[in-house]
Amino acid sequence: MNPDLAWQVWSEERQHRVEHVLDRLLPSVESGATSLHRAMRYAVLGGGKRVRPLLAYAAGEVAGADPDVADAAAAAVELIHAYSLVHDDLPAMDNDTLRRGKPTCHVAFGEAMALLAGDALQALAFDALARARLPDPGAACALLAEAAGEHGMAGGQAIDLEAVGRTLDLAELETMHRMKTGALIRAAVRLGAACGRPLAAPALAALDAYAQAAGLAFQVVDDVLDVEGSAETLGKTAGKDALQAKPTFVSLLGPAAAKARAEALRREAHAALAPLGGAARRLAELADWIVLRQR
Amino acid sequence: MNPDLAWQVWSEERQHRVEHVLDRLLPSVESGATSLHRAMRYAVLGGGKRVRPLLAYAAGEVAGADPDVADAAAAAVELIHAYSLVHDDLPAMDNDTLRRGKPTCHVAFGEAMALLAGDALQALAFDALARARLPDPGAACALLAEAAGEHGMAGGQAIDLEAVGRTLDLAELETMHRMKTGALIRAAVRLGAACGRPLAAPALAALDAYAQAAGLAFQVVDDVLDVEGSAETLGKTAGKDALQAKPTFVSLLGPAAAKARAEALRREAHAALAPLGGAARRLAELADWIVLRQR
Repeated sequence: MNPDLAWQVWSEERQHRVEHVLDRLLPSVESGATSLHRAMRYAVLGGGKRVRPLLAYAAGEVAGADPDVADAAAAAVELIHAYSLVHDDLPAMDNDTLRRGKPTCHVAFGEAMALLAGDALQALAFDALARARLPDPGAACALLAEAAGEHGMAGGQAIDLEAVGRTLDLAELETMHRMKTGALIRAAVRLGAACGRPLAAPALAALDAYAQAAGLAFQVVDDVLDVEGSAETLGKTAGKDALQAKPTFVSLLGPAAAKARAEALRREAHAALAPLGGAARRLAELADWIVLRQR
Repeated sequence: MNPDLAWQVWSEERQHRVEHVLDRLLPSVESGATSLHRAMRYAVLGGGKRVRPLLAYAAGEVAGADPDVADAAAAAVELIHAYSLVHDDLPAMDNDTLRRGKPTCHVAFGEAMALLAGDALQALAFDALARARLPDPGAACALLAEAAGEHGMAGGQAIDLEAVGRTLDLAELETMHRMKTGALIRAAVRLGAACGRPLAAPALAALDAYAQAAGLAFQVVDDVLDVEGSAETLGKTAGKDALQAKPTFVSLLGPAAAKARAEALRREAHAALAPLGGAARRLAELADWIVLRQR
């Protein structure tokens, strides 16, 4: 099989796989039948690139993880991501109406139910991880909690919130994104690896260096797409960073230098993987996909 | 020491203890110094009856738990409770302005920051539990997640939300409260016990029967106090259930029958503890405190 086709088969298989895992983890609409269950399913299923689950599965392959175990890591990071989008889209935050090509959760279910759905999705992420047959479920939950909490995603969102209309320099912008999106992307890689055999310190360091580069690249590309993409290709409102006067890599560097930065980070991610050999093939392809994607 | 005084000393010692534990777990205001850290501390510290932590410590004594380990269970359930109050008070939910005698979190820090503070407090709860030296941190995290999520607290809040202005019968009201407040109270007892030596099935069943009765009693008394208390004694807005046309035990049963129900549940809680002997003394006293409290 040519490498491009092999990658496509691998990534689509994993995307379908995590969709089924999420479908099974989420509460059914028949049982209990509150709008909460529908709102949770709406926010998670049927959309999204599933970048974080793919990273978890790919890192799991480095550690020889059983895919049945890696499922929990893949689902947990996606559930945290999905909850953060629901809360981020609320009127009190970004006040966004379009996400993954559909009305946002609060537009479809009301603000109060969207708030609760996000809350319940966060709990479900820990539930999924804690119940899985990971070698050390406690350590895995601690890792996810740190990535989601005040030193990770939530902390980054708070910095983002206070940065609107203010000037951030490039170092501050990077710090914000290393927390806001980078922390969960690093957690996806670390949790995926934690599903397999224990890795030696140099391998863990290589994975982490990869995740940091890939995570930052993801955000730089997001900023470029927000300027150059359309709502149709993105599935979410385009151009909203400029509208909200948010500092971005494009506003600070200009579009050409931002693209060059993404390309440099892609090469950095590849270089980080070198010590891991062929087992890291999918992670390398994921870095390419993250930087070369159109949405 | 007379029993009343011994109880008072025990409960005040534990209240101070969990305050210190929470203070240590929460991010300092010096480090990072975002409003997020201040909002998290504001929402958790310096107020609250700490009912759930007391339940965790008291159940820990039944299992001979090391208080240093029980600290994590006590703090985790209180962090979940505190986050739920922050989100519950938001304009999209109850739109409340007074909590624990102070302006609510979103009044003090803005809606967006309060939303993030609640999110980060939920993550911190799992962080605290996962890092502690519990015999089985994974099982503990799964237990907390189930209590907090769509089959527990968040699910109960969703039912509550959809019940405003609608008629619930007594069975529906009880189901709602068994999820909304009861699930976390049961988790407090189960997690406290999980900090010690493994208990036999009959002891676990006794603790759970106790927790179900005490949890429901707590809510019945809350409904009575909402009608009969003042904002000054309660530290939160009084009379808001009637104002929001929420079904309550008082609106369904009348005040006299609601008080009789609370008293019956108190006796039920005591009866459940009988097989556990003197080690359950604090749990018995807690049931009395829950029913006889004035705020």
